[in-house]
Amino acid sequence: MSIVLYDLAGREDRRFGPTCWRVRMALAHKQLAFETVPVRFLDIRGIGGEEGSPGFRTVPTIRAEGRWITDSDAIAAWLEEAFPDRPTLFGGEGGRKLTDFFRQWVQQILHAQIVRMVLVDVHDHLADAQDQAYFRETREALFKAPLETVAAGREARIEPFRASLEPLRQTLKDRPFLGGEAPLHADYMVLGAFQWARTVSPFAARLLAADDPLRAWLGRLMELHGGLAGRAVAYPL
Amino acid sequence: MSIVLYDLAGREDRRFGPTCWRVRMALAHKQLAFETVPVRFLDIRGIGGEEGSPGFRTVPTIRAEGRWITDSDAIAAWLEEAFPDRPTLFGGEGGRKLTDFFRQWVQQILHAQIVRMVLVDVHDHLADAQDQAYFRETREALFKAPLETVAAGREARIEPFRASLEPLRQTLKDRPFLGGEAPLHADYMVLGAFQWARTVSPFAARLLAADDPLRAWLGRLMELHGGLAGRAVAYPL
Repeated sequence: MSIVLYDLAGREDRRFGPTCWRVRMALAHKQLAFETVPVRFLDIRGIGGEEGSPGFRTVPTIRAEGRWITDSDAIAAWLEEAFPDRPTLFGGEGGRKLTDFFRQWVQQILHAQIVRMVLVDVHDHLADAQDQAYFRETREALFKAPLETVAAGREARIEPFRASLEPLRQTLKDRPFLGGEAPLHADYMVLGAFQWARTVSPFAARLLAADDPLRAWLGRLMELHGGLAGRAVAYPL
Repeated sequence: MSIVLYDLAGREDRRFGPTCWRVRMALAHKQLAFETVPVRFLDIRGIGGEEGSPGFRTVPTIRAEGRWITDSDAIAAWLEEAFPDRPTLFGGEGGRKLTDFFRQWVQQILHAQIVRMVLVDVHDHLADAQDQAYFRETREALFKAPLETVAAGREARIEPFRASLEPLRQTLKDRPFLGGEAPLHADYMVLGAFQWARTVSPFAARLLAADDPLRAWLGRLMELHGGLAGRAVAYPL
């Protein structure tokens, strides 16, 4: 099967899309070969061109054997159904349902905090001035403030961020991955959030204390699938 | 099968143990008949008497066909294994693993906030002066402060509490229960936290805004299994 992942990219081929990372890890988890096509924000609308109509897409999007699938959750669901005999992403129907809760937690707790710490860094690492202008305009409209204002005072947000990860720490006390001996899609959701930070921001190194046990877990995730996440163009975590 | 649940109880037979509620709902979910034995905090050590040695237990504890099982997670795990053909509590291995994360979230987010709002109310609704003295002594040692100090200023904690439930609200937008069409043990964990509050505290009515969509979900959970949770001796939610 030929699979192509349209993957958000900045300068120096920094792949910073957190949900793109979920898909990249999920494809590798299902032992599928795939290529990635780096796209800027301004390229997203045109993914697939004529063939990919009706036009407006988001990333991640994959093309697999002529089929277009957009949205990381839809892609993960399709992978689980299309490749039931490969390693599981959800571990059954209950896991799939609770992954929906987990995703909400990742979005509302992890992403909501990380974005306020790395927003300017994302901007500064985009591919070119056009993408930067688009990003600034759309994100400033979203946050109703200049990027620099949103990201100001991030030092003071480190401790609350670290504290908010405690449910992960407690869960991981007796197992190498959230999923047990093997990772689940939930593991990749958190990895994606940290990849987002470290691909664009030197501040990523501050997200976890030096002795945080989550470092070992993220290290394991970065080593998986031939070091797929670990070898990305990125700052140190 | 004859099953007995040792269940934390206060005056007027208020069953306020949040993890006891998880077990009570899990037993009903598995369509098992069971009796409950109300216990005070001071009774816990003696559960089972000679027969139940080695003595120190916690609640919930169940006795099922001569077997003693203590701890709500151990009980749920046993129920799932012993009754695989009855409705599932986890929905497979992935669900079981992610339930561990969910439990940590419930403990650290819901329980940690609720306890600071209802601690004095728990005390005031205990069965007798002896249990109250035990509760005050042990909890004040734990919190390193008088109960009244821990629970002070709870009005100001309502909004952050409500905001912290947002991952639940988002997940429940497209389904009647966290588990989908049917509840999972995760649903009962949150129900247990609210049962804890409402069985002892008039303040329970303040936990959710009048128009919070979580009310409908909790209402559904309270109606399950013949209204098992809904008909408990309790204040309005």
